[in-house]
Amino acid sequence: MIVLGIDPGYATVGYGILQYEKNRFTPLAFGAITTPAGLPFSRRLEMIYDDINKLIEKFSPDVLSIEELFFTTNAKTGIAVAQARGVILLAAQKAGIPCFEYTPLQVKSAVTGYGKAEKKQVQELTRCILALDKVPKPDDTADALALAICHCHSSGSALSALYAGLK
Amino acid sequence: MIVLGIDPGYATVGYGILQYEKNRFTPLAFGAITTPAGLPFSRRLEMIYDDINKLIEKFSPDVLSIEELFFTTNAKTGIAVAQARGVILLAAQKAGIPCFEYTPLQVKSAVTGYGKAEKKQVQELTRCILALDKVPKPDDTADALALAICHCHSSGSALSALYAGLK
Repeated sequence: MIVLGIDPGYATVGYGILQYEKNRFTPLAFGAITTPAGLPFSRRLEMIYDDINKLIEKFSPDVLSIEELFFTTNAKTGIAVAQARGVILLAAQKAGIPCFEYTPLQVKSAVTGYGKAEKKQVQELTRCILALDKVPKPDDTADALALAICHCHSSGSALSALYAGLK
Repeated sequence: MIVLGIDPGYATVGYGILQYEKNRFTPLAFGAITTPAGLPFSRRLEMIYDDINKLIEKFSPDVLSIEELFFTTNAKTGIAVAQARGVILLAAQKAGIPCFEYTPLQVKSAVTGYGKAEKKQVQELTRCILALDKVPKPDDTADALALAICHCHSSGSALSALYAGLK
């Protein structure tokens, strides 16, 4: 299974693409799509959409794992992020890739086993699980990789649960 | 000038397409794109994107006039609307159509001359300005037409202002 993890944003979209076979992870690519602040917002959405499409074409992911959005403090930023998230979901949908969304709590639990783990702990365990030399930068990239891991662990559990039910 | 007015949403997207020449409005089409609640959200985004593209292909609008989003009460609904708005902006951008956004206050002012006008007044004046037999339904459609009128009046004023500056 190839999982595309996405930490949505409009200035920076973190991505992490993992192959997951027999409980082993192989990172295929990770990084961040960035869009310049000076451009019209619609153009920035287009850049994100086009770049996500390029990743999909190159790596043929089976699944998109993306962070669920919550609005807390800054509604204006939240609206912009949600609009960017819309075009990311559209790209996956157009390519026939199912989307799964996870809360930060779910990601932390899946990666560290503890829902209230600190960001640094999540990043360090992400690094260990993927056997990387150092924590990927920016944070958005590390978060995207954690989201991809989260989906693999979650779908593993879902499968275990299914098998358990069949016994 | 042909203006595509859009009242963004994810269950219902109101649209109104107006031709505006020499201070005269000709409604070319208006209605609403609706998406069924039972479908996956990504699929609903795709339906909106595809339908907006069809309108763009058929009517070749010069401009998109779309409501600016604010979050007040329901953040969850707001996130969903913003995601839908993202794919609408993307469709316009992909077709090379510039996007203009207006607040409800600007729309009310442009249509009725009074920023605090009631919804019914805005709808009735929209009907009069466009010489329609009755107020278009649903409200999202009427709002989209008001947005299209708003852009025409606003760009008219901007032009007047420009001319005024040249005198």
